[in-house]
Amino acid sequence: MSERPAPTTETQHAAATLDGWYTLHDFRSIDWTRLKAVDPTARQEMIDEFVAFLGSLEEVETRGEGSHAFYSILGQKADVVLMVLRPTFKELEQVELALRKTKLYDYMIPSYSYVSVIELGMYRGSGDGDPYENPHIRARLYPTLPKAAHICFYPMSKARRDGDNWYTLSMDERKDLMYRHSMIGRSYAGKIQQFIGGSTGFDGWEWGVTLFAEDSLQFKKIVYEMRFDEVSAKYGEFGDFYVGNILPKEELGTFLG
Amino acid sequence: MSERPAPTTETQHAAATLDGWYTLHDFRSIDWTRLKAVDPTARQEMIDEFVAFLGSLEEVETRGEGSHAFYSILGQKADVVLMVLRPTFKELEQVELALRKTKLYDYMIPSYSYVSVIELGMYRGSGDGDPYENPHIRARLYPTLPKAAHICFYPMSKARRDGDNWYTLSMDERKDLMYRHSMIGRSYAGKIQQFIGGSTGFDGWEWGVTLFAEDSLQFKKIVYEMRFDEVSAKYGEFGDFYVGNILPKEELGTFLG
Amino acid sequence: MSERPAPTTETQHAAATLDGWYTLHDFRSIDWTRLKAVDPTARQEMIDEFVAFLGSLEEVETRGEGSHAFYSILGQKADVVLMVLRPTFKELEQVELALRKTKLYDYMIPSYSYVSVIELGMYRGSGDGDPYENPHIRARLYPTLPKAAHICFYPMSKARRDGDNWYTLSMDERKDLMYRHSMIGRSYAGKIQQFIGGSTGFDGWEWGVTLFAEDSLQFKKIVYEMRFDEVSAKYGEFGDFYVGNILPKEELGTFLG
Amino acid sequence: MSERPAPTTETQHAAATLDGWYTLHDFRSIDWTRLKAVDPTARQEMIDEFVAFLGSLEEVETRGEGSHAFYSILGQKADVVLMVLRPTFKELEQVELALRKTKLYDYMIPSYSYVSVIELGMYRGSGDGDPYENPHIRARLYPTLPKAAHICFYPMSKARRDGDNWYTLSMDERKDLMYRHSMIGRSYAGKIQQFIGGSTGFDGWEWGVTLFAEDSLQFKKIVYEMRFDEVSAKYGEFGDFYVGNILPKEELGTFLG
Amino acid sequence: MSERPAPTTETQHAAATLDGWYTLHDFRSIDWTRLKAVDPTARQEMIDEFVAFLGSLEEVETRGEGSHAFYSILGQKADVVLMVLRPTFKELEQVELALRKTKLYDYMIPSYSYVSVIELGMYRGSGDGDPYENPHIRARLYPTLPKAAHICFYPMSKARRDGDNWYTLSMDERKDLMYRHSMIGRSYAGKIQQFIGGSTGFDGWEWGVTLFAEDSLQFKKIVYEMRFDEVSAKYGEFGDFYVGNILPKEELGTFLG
Repeated sequence: MSERPAPTTETQHAAATLDGWYTLHDFRSIDWTRLKAVDPTARQEMIDEFVAFLGSLEEVETRGEGSHAFYSILGQKADVVLMVLRPTFKELEQVELALRKTKLYDYMIPSYSYVSVIELGMYRGSGDGDPYENPHIRARLYPTLPKAAHICFYPMSKARRDGDNWYTLSMDERKDLMYRHSMIGRSYAGKIQQFIGGSTGFDGWEWGVTLFAEDSLQFKKIVYEMRFDEVSAKYGEFGDFYVGNILPKEELGTFLG
Repeated sequence: MSERPAPTTETQHAAATLDGWYTLHDFRSIDWTRLKAVDPTARQEMIDEFVAFLGSLEEVETRGEGSHAFYSILGQKADVVLMVLRPTFKELEQVELALRKTKLYDYMIPSYSYVSVIELGMYRGSGDGDPYENPHIRARLYPTLPKAAHICFYPMSKARRDGDNWYTLSMDERKDLMYRHSMIGRSYAGKIQQFIGGSTGFDGWEWGVTLFAEDSLQFKKIVYEMRFDEVSAKYGEFGDFYVGNILPKEELGTFLG
Repeated sequence: MSERPAPTTETQHAAATLDGWYTLHDFRSIDWTRLKAVDPTARQEMIDEFVAFLGSLEEVETRGEGSHAFYSILGQKADVVLMVLRPTFKELEQVELALRKTKLYDYMIPSYSYVSVIELGMYRGSGDGDPYENPHIRARLYPTLPKAAHICFYPMSKARRDGDNWYTLSMDERKDLMYRHSMIGRSYAGKIQQFIGGSTGFDGWEWGVTLFAEDSLQFKKIVYEMRFDEVSAKYGEFGDFYVGNILPKEELGTFLG
Repeated sequence: MSERPAPTTETQHAAATLDGWYTLHDFRSIDWTRLKAVDPTARQEMIDEFVAFLGSLEEVETRGEGSHAFYSILGQKADVVLMVLRPTFKELEQVELALRKTKLYDYMIPSYSYVSVIELGMYRGSGDGDPYENPHIRARLYPTLPKAAHICFYPMSKARRDGDNWYTLSMDERKDLMYRHSMIGRSYAGKIQQFIGGSTGFDGWEWGVTLFAEDSLQFKKIVYEMRFDEVSAKYGEFGDFYVGNILPKEELGTFLG
Repeated sequence: MSERPAPTTETQHAAATLDGWYTLHDFRSIDWTRLKAVDPTARQEMIDEFVAFLGSLEEVETRGEGSHAFYSILGQKADVVLMVLRPTFKELEQVELALRKTKLYDYMIPSYSYVSVIELGMYRGSGDGDPYENPHIRARLYPTLPKAAHICFYPMSKARRDGDNWYTLSMDERKDLMYRHSMIGRSYAGKIQQFIGGSTGFDGWEWGVTLFAEDSLQFKKIVYEMRFDEVSAKYGEFGDFYVGNILPKEELGTFLG
C-alpha cells in the first residue's frame, strides 16, 4: 500500500492536501455493430472472460489493495466507465494492461479518461496526530467504492480570471468559502457519497468529482444548489458531466445483448 | 411512474424546481453509402423492424408511462433525433438497448446526445398544495409530446462571468428577470410548445430547450426576440441549434430511400 | 411559395425582419482516392447523373420556386458547396434526399452545413404598404442567385460580452450603427452581391453572409474595410470563411478528373 | 498576371493594402503505413510522378507566373507543406487539381490549409507613383520564394476585445505601433525572409506569416522578441505554428523511404 | 553539436534566453486490436526491431550527441511518449524517419507532438564569460535525460489578457516574479528534475515543461503549490498534462503483450 509521509510544516500551508489512492476513470464506447456480428458462442466467451477480469478486480478490493466501480453511461458520450483505485501509477497501468488483454477490449472505443489521486482538503485541519494514521481519514483516502444505483462524474477547476481568481485569494478567504461549500455537501449526507480526485499536475482539470446515489435526481439537486454558492458561482469551471447506472457483472450479458 | 416527494422547505429556495420525466435526446446520422448498398429486401426488413420499435415506444406513450418524438434534422449535424421521456435512468437505458438491437442502428453514426429531466422553475411559486398532485403541473412534468411539423432543440447555460453572473444575482432579481422572459414566451402561445429539460449535474449545459411548431419560422422569431431580453442578452449562453421535420413512421421508408 | 403575413405592430419593433426563402449551405469534401479508383465508364455515369440532378434544380429555379449555387471551395475545408433556397424546411429536406440518391454522394464527405432563412433587416423601415407585396423586396427575399465567378461564405453573430453587448444597445444606437455599416456595403455595389441568411433559432451562429463577386479580391476589401466599422470591430464575431470558384455543370467532369 | 488597379483615394485610408499573388498553404500528413505496403517499383513510379509534378511548378516559377515552396514539417501536425503562389483563385484550384491527380496524393491525409493573398501594408505610404509599377514593390508582391533550409508558418489576427481592440484604434495609433513593430523585423534582415498573406474575408484568421531562415533558432528569437512589442503583446492573437525543413525533390525518395 | 554564439548586447534584454538542443515530444497511441492480431513470431520481430531502434538512440546519447526518454502514458491521451533531444531540426527529422521505418510504427496512432528547444531563462543573468562555455550551463542545455520512474509533461503560455498581461510587465516586475517562482522549484530539488523547452515561434504554446520524479505525487505537489504563486495564478495558461511510467526496453515485450 502506498503510504504517505505525514504532512510536515513544509506542506502545512493552505494548499496542503492528504492524498490516497491513485485513480483512473476509463470511459469507453462499445462498437455495437461489430459486436453484434460476433457469433453467440464467441460472444459468450468474451463476456465470461470480462466477468473474470471484473472478478480479479474484486479480489484486489477484498484484499483492501484497491477498489473499482463499473457503470453504464447514458447517451453517446460513452457506454461504460471503469473507475479504478490503486496505490501506485504502476498498478494503474497494470489494470490497463489487463483490460487490454480481454477480447471485449477489441470492441471498445476510447472516449474519455481521467487520472487523479483521492484527495482530502485540509482547510479545516486534520486534527491531532498523523492524519495518515487516523482510521476515519484512512477510510476516506483508501475507500471501498459503493455499489450505488447511479454514478455521476465531472472534472472541474478553480477560475483564474482577472476578476475572479481563486489562487490569489487569501488562505482565510478560501477557508471561509470552502466551509460554506462543505455545509451544502453535508446536507446531502445519506443521499450522496462523494469522492474527490485531485489532478493538478496530472490533467488539465484540477479536480474530478465522482458522486454515487440511489436516486439520480440528487445529482441535479446538489450540483444545482452548489452552483449558487460563491465557490461554484464565481470560481467553479466545469468540464463535461457523465451519468449512468450500475452495471453488475451478472447483467453484463444482457447489456451486451 | 417516478413520483417525487413534494418540495420541502429544504428545497423551497429560489433554486427549487419541479422535476418530471428523465429525457434523452439522441441525435444520429445515417451512413447513407452503406445503407444504399443493402439489398431492397433486407432494407425493407430493417425498416419494418424499426417501425415496430417506434410502435413499441407508442405503446408506452399510450399507457402514459413515457413519451417520445422522432424527427429528421436538416443539414449535416445529424439526420434524425429520437427524443425519449421515461420515469427513470434505467428505463432510458432500456430504450437505448432496444434501439441498439435494431438492424438500422448498425447504419447510424452517433452525432450528439443530451440527458436531462423535464423541469418547471418555481420562481412564481407553485400554488397551494403539493404541486406533484396538481393535474395541470403533472401534465407538464409528464407530458405527451406533440406531433408538430417541426422541432428545434438547443442546450444553454446561464453565464457566470465576472461582469454578468446569474448565480450571484439575488432571488428577487432573478424572479423579475424570469418573469419578463416568460411574458415573451407566453406571447407565442398557440404557435410554439416548449419543453425545458434541466441538466445541471447531468451535462455540461444546464438546460435543454425543445420547441415544437407548425411554422418553422416561429423558432427564429421567438429566439431572436428573446435574445434582446436581459435574461438572454446578458446571461444566456447557447450551444448548437438543431432543427428539422417530423418523420412519421409511415414515411420512414421514403426517407431511407 | 412560402408567403409570410405582413409584419404587424406585434413584430414591428427593432428586432423585426422580413424573411424569405429557407436556405441550406451544404459543404462537402470529395473522397478523391476512392473516386479515382472508379472505372471511367462508371465515373462518367456518376457525372451524368449529378449533372442531371443539378439540371433538376435549375428547373425549379426557372419556375421561380427556389434557387441554388454550386461552387468549388479552395483549400481543405471543403471541395464543393451546394447552396439551395426553398420555400419550406420540407422542400430543403427533399433536396437533401435527392442529393443522397446520387451515386456521387457516396464519394462525398460532410464538412460543414448551415441552415438559415433569407432575411432583410428593417432598421430603416420597409416603406409604405405590405413589404411582402413590394416587388423590389420580393426580389431580394426570393432571389435568383447570381452566376458570379467567385463565392465567399461566413457565419457570424453579434457579441454579447459584458463590455460590448449588441443586444443591450437601444434601438436608436443599433439603427445608427447599422446605417453606417450599410453605407460601406453600398460602396461595393456592382462589385459584390450579398445575401444574408438569418439563423437565430436555427444555428449557433446568428447570421450567414454569402457574397458573390467577379473579382475575388473584393471579398477581402469589403470584409477588411468593414472590420474597422464599429458594428464589426466591437460587435462582430465571425466563424470560418469559405471561398471558391463557380463550378458550372459543364466543367464537373474536368473537376472530378 | 493578376494586375491590380492603382489604389485610389477611395482605398487610400488606413486599411489600404497592396495585394499580390494569391497563396495556398496545403499541409498534409502521409499515410505511412499504407505507403510502406506499396511495392518498391510502384513507389518509385509514384515518386517520379511527384517529382515531375514539382518540376511543372518550377517551370511556372521560371516563367515568373507564380512560385512555390515544398518543406517537410516536424511533429504530428503535418508531414509536408506545399505553399503555392498564383495570380488567380482559379489557378490555385488548378494546382489543387494537378496535385490530386498524382498517385502520391492518394497516400496523403489533409491536415491544414490556408488561403490568402500576398499583402503589403501601406501604413508608411507607398511613395510616389503607382506602387504596382514600382519594381521593388512588385518583387515583394510577386516574389520567388527562397530555398532556405527552414520554414515557419502561423496564422494570426488582431484582437478585438473590449480592453484591447486594434480596430477601434486611430490610424495614427496603428501607424506608430506598426512602425515600432517593423523595426524589430528589420533587425532580422539577412537572417529571416518574411511573407505576409492577408486573409480577411478568405479565412477566420486575418493574416498568415511565412518565415524562411537558414538558422531555425531565428524563428524563436524573432517571434519571442516581437511578443514583448505592444502590437503582439496586446493585439496579437496567434493560431498554431508549423516548422520544418526544406524537402528538395532530389531527397523525396529518401524522405518517403 | 549545435553551438550558439554567445549572447550579445543585442539580445541581452529581458527576453534573452540560452538555447540548447532541439526537442521533439512524440506521443502515440497503440492500435491494440490490430497489434493483438499479429502472430507471436512477427510480434517478437517487431519488438526486437523497436528495441534495436531504442538502442540506436542510446548510442547517440552515449556519444553525447543527443538524449531521449521513452515512457508509457496513463489513460487514453496516449500510450507512449518518445522525447528526443538533438542539435538540429534536421536530426530531429531523421529520428522521425527512423521511427517510421520500424514495423511497430504501423501499429501506432499519432496523438500529440510538441517541438521546442531546451531553454534557460536569463532573468538572473548567466554570470561572467560566455555562458555557452560554462560547463554547468552546458550540462543543462545539452542534458542526458534521467531514467526516473515517472514523467510529467505539459505545455504552457504566459497570459496576454487585458487585465493580466505578462508581456506588458516591466523587466524588473518579471524578474521579481520569476525569482519567487524559481524558489518554489528549488524546494523540490532532489525530488523533481525539470526541463524547459521554449517553443515561441515553433508552437502555439510558448513553453513545454517536462518533469521527472521517482514519486509521482511530487508532480501534483509542485504544480499545485506553484499555482498559488503569482506567475502561475495570474499569468500561467496551461495545456493538457501527460503522466506516465518509465518503459525500459527490456519491458517492451511485456507492455505490448
